[in-house]
Amino acid sequence: MIRKLMEQIEAKHAPVVVGLDPNPSMIPKHLYTEAARSLRNKPEADDELEITACAIWKFNRQIIDAVGDLIPAVKPQIAMYEQFGIPGLQTYLRTLRYCREKGLIVIADVKRGDIGSTSMAYARAHLGRTEANGVMRRIFDADFATVNPYFGTDGIEPFIDICRQEKKGIFVLVKTSNPTSVEFQDVLLKDGTPLYELVGRKVSEWGAGLMDGSYSDIGAVVGATYPEQAKRLREVMPHTFILAPGYGAQGATAADLAGFFDSDGKGCIVNSSRGIIAAYQKEKYAGFGPEGFAEAARAAAKDMIDDLSSVI
Amino acid sequence: MIRKLMEQIEAKHAPVVVGLDPNPSMIPKHLYTEAARSLRNKPEADDELEITACAIWKFNRQIIDAVGDLIPAVKPQIAMYEQFGIPGLQTYLRTLRYCREKGLIVIADVKRGDIGSTSMAYARAHLGRTEANGVMRRIFDADFATVNPYFGTDGIEPFIDICRQEKKGIFVLVKTSNPTSVEFQDVLLKDGTPLYELVGRKVSEWGAGLMDGSYSDIGAVVGATYPEQAKRLREVMPHTFILAPGYGAQGATAADLAGFFDSDGKGCIVNSSRGIIAAYQKEKYAGFGPEGFAEAARAAAKDMIDDLSSVI
Repeated sequence: MIRKLMEQIEAKHAPVVVGLDPNPSMIPKHLYTEAARSLRNKPEADDELEITACAIWKFNRQIIDAVGDLIPAVKPQIAMYEQFGIPGLQTYLRTLRYCREKGLIVIADVKRGDIGSTSMAYARAHLGRTEANGVMRRIFDADFATVNPYFGTDGIEPFIDICRQEKKGIFVLVKTSNPTSVEFQDVLLKDGTPLYELVGRKVSEWGAGLMDGSYSDIGAVVGATYPEQAKRLREVMPHTFILAPGYGAQGATAADLAGFFDSDGKGCIVNSSRGIIAAYQKEKYAGFGPEGFAEAARAAAKDMIDDLSSVI
Repeated sequence: MIRKLMEQIEAKHAPVVVGLDPNPSMIPKHLYTEAARSLRNKPEADDELEITACAIWKFNRQIIDAVGDLIPAVKPQIAMYEQFGIPGLQTYLRTLRYCREKGLIVIADVKRGDIGSTSMAYARAHLGRTEANGVMRRIFDADFATVNPYFGTDGIEPFIDICRQEKKGIFVLVKTSNPTSVEFQDVLLKDGTPLYELVGRKVSEWGAGLMDGSYSDIGAVVGATYPEQAKRLREVMPHTFILAPGYGAQGATAADLAGFFDSDGKGCIVNSSRGIIAAYQKEKYAGFGPEGFAEAARAAAKDMIDDLSSVI
């Protein structure tokens, strides 16, 4: 699957993934009105949740239609859907299906992780198939999922097994983009190396058996906000593809990202969520207005692609 | 909320939580038959998933009815429901509501954790309320949730804020019960302390502002399979309530658990999942047969309570 992602990046000249993390404050009012209208003849158990979930779906669909030809992949953040319960998760599922129909690679940002038997259930849910009453069924069926490493190897192995069987991939959290990721991830171990480096080495080991071209299907999340750490991690994980969140709204710039790529300008994909999907709320793209939110997203995605091309 | 949990433990003389982690292999065949029959007049979009989710619901309800009066709390593992997609998550929600109706405290075993803004969405989803089209709505509405600490303080703070507002609690993963938890959690830091101790100290700090009686609403997960580590953690987290998984099926015994409790025999609740809900599949309780699975669970829960009372 990593080879497919790399091919799509190359075809579109865009190492960019758009984060579909629609916080309700980003959804233009008119989409709520439209959602309420389209649900009027369909009284649901829980109207307000249904209306919100429907508004988010309309928002996502227009964003995907507007940016889909520019980018190789999307990264829906499941928490933004989970917070609206069952209707929200229905929108999550619908969004994933629509992205696949459009030929986009889907990175499910679920950050799951647990003991082995439980990780297996998560791996089935998000990447594989589940046996339901004797029949194998695909559930959320993303191409990649993000995974938390805190449980060690036996929390990761079920994901690796499913990746092998289904030809899919994962990105394991190594160094996250948030300010306090230093508290545990950068703590120095007895031999003087930081914890993130130990985790990075493990991710590299886990991925050794799943090479797919020059990179492994077992990738790593490294925050764009930590360029020094990324430089070190690029060295200790030479075959590990990096998913880098934190560009734009979280403060990282294109210059910060140079060290995330290999000498061929490959090996990394950069995420932006708010910076693209809520571009119309920023001064630079305010001219599009709330009605033009999708076109604003397209303009912001183009600008991001140009910006990154200057450093690769 | 931790005070309420402690009162219920005392009232029932049972520091025991039953894990509602119904792996499909545990569900007796007759429940699938009953589920298929009850869905016959209700053609659904996805029959096999609906039938499975309905069978799990029937299983859970009978387990809850059989053990509810013996125990203070249940711990549904969301992965076991997520693997059946939307129908599975509907059963998860239905199970939570049923447990609350029965007066049981619900610990949502979700192990979520992310950067601040995303953790806030998870905290709203599982413990708090979400604003949907201008109205505040409760979503999954558990009493406690389990949380992953890898992101550090700003991944935990939104959960703490919601706990304060809603008078709820969390259990942060400190030392997990699985074999490879040693890989990262037991790694020695520069000053010679293991990582789990640093995490434990942080959990204790995070909980200092949320004391509720003699313990904090910010608790910790410490695997029953690691009694030595627990002894140390009891010292560094004197006001942190421990949720201890790993008893029974994962190999920990009552003797292993003595050090998890304080000198008053308080401060810990022990989880068993398979050991109770799938008791009828074990030789000891096989006499109950698949039809008597709920009564087998009751017998196993009683035995567990007796077993633990011998060491507290």
